Amino acid sequence: MIILGIDPGVATVGFGIITESAGVQKLHRYGAISTPSGMRLALRLKQIKDDVSELIKTFKPDAIAVEELFWGANKKTEVMVAQGRAAVILAGEECAVPMFEYTPLQVKKAVTGYGRAPKKQVMEMVRRLLNIEQIPKPDDAADALAVAICHARTVNSLLVTKGENICTTI
Amino acid sequence: MIILGIDPGVATVGFGIITESAGVQKLHRYGAISTPSGMRLALRLKQIKDDVSELIKTFKPDAIAVEELFWGANKKTEVMVAQGRAAVILAGEECAVPMFEYTPLQVKKAVTGYGRAPKKQVMEMVRRLLNIEQIPKPDDAADALAVAICHARTVNSLLVTKGENICTTI
Repeated sequence: MIILGIDPGVATVGFGIITESAGVQKLHRYGAISTPSGMRLALRLKQIKDDVSELIKTFKPDAIAVEELFWGANKKTEVMVAQGRAAVILAGEECAVPMFEYTPLQVKKAVTGYGRAPKKQVMEMVRRLLNIEQIPKPDDAADALAVAICHARTVNSLLVTKGENICTTI
Repeated sequence: MIILGIDPGVATVGFGIITESAGVQKLHRYGAISTPSGMRLALRLKQIKDDVSELIKTFKPDAIAVEELFWGANKKTEVMVAQGRAAVILAGEECAVPMFEYTPLQVKKAVTGYGRAPKKQVMEMVRRLLNIEQIPKPDDAADALAVAICHARTVNSLLVTKGENICTTI
């Protein structure tokens, strides 16, 4: 299974692509889509949508996992991230890829076992779980990989436990 | 000039189409795009984008005027409206129609002459300026017509005064 994880935004959209097979996740590709602050909002949103569509066409993910909005930021940031997130969601929907969303708490818990783990610990676990030497940069890409891992682990736990469906479909 | 005014949202997107000629605005069409709350967010956003694209293809507006977000609502509402707004903006951008945004204060000032006018007064002025018998329903459609009128009047005042450009391009 190929999973595309996304950490949404407008200035920077982190992405991380992993493969998951028999409970083992492997890094495939990661990076960030950046849009300059001087660019019109409409163009920035279109660039994000087009670039995410391109990622989908190139890497053909079976699922997209998107981080839910973090509610601690200031209002202006939240609204910008919400608009960037909508551009990502529209790209996924137009390419007909199933999408799932996870709260930061769910992501931290899936990656470190503890929902309130500090960011540094999450990053370090992303590095270890993917068996790579360095923590991916920028942070947005590492966050995107964390949400991709979260989806892989959630799907696996569902296969094992057949328990409550904690995947939330967007 | 044909202007498409939009009052963004996810549950309800108000729209209003007016024509503007020599300082006179005439009502052309108005209504609302509604998406059911039980529908997946991704599908709701796609429906909004597709329906706005359809409006653009049908009525061929020269400009789209979108209301800026109202910052008084609760966070969840704001984030939903921001996502709906992104779907509208992407529809406009993909159809290559120039887009402009106005704050609620600018809309009220353009329609009633007073930036803090009560909603009822704005609605009544929309009715009078468009020379129609009833205030359009739902409110979202009347709000969309108000922002369309705001754009018409702003463009006219710019033609007359050649003053500071108060149109903000999205």
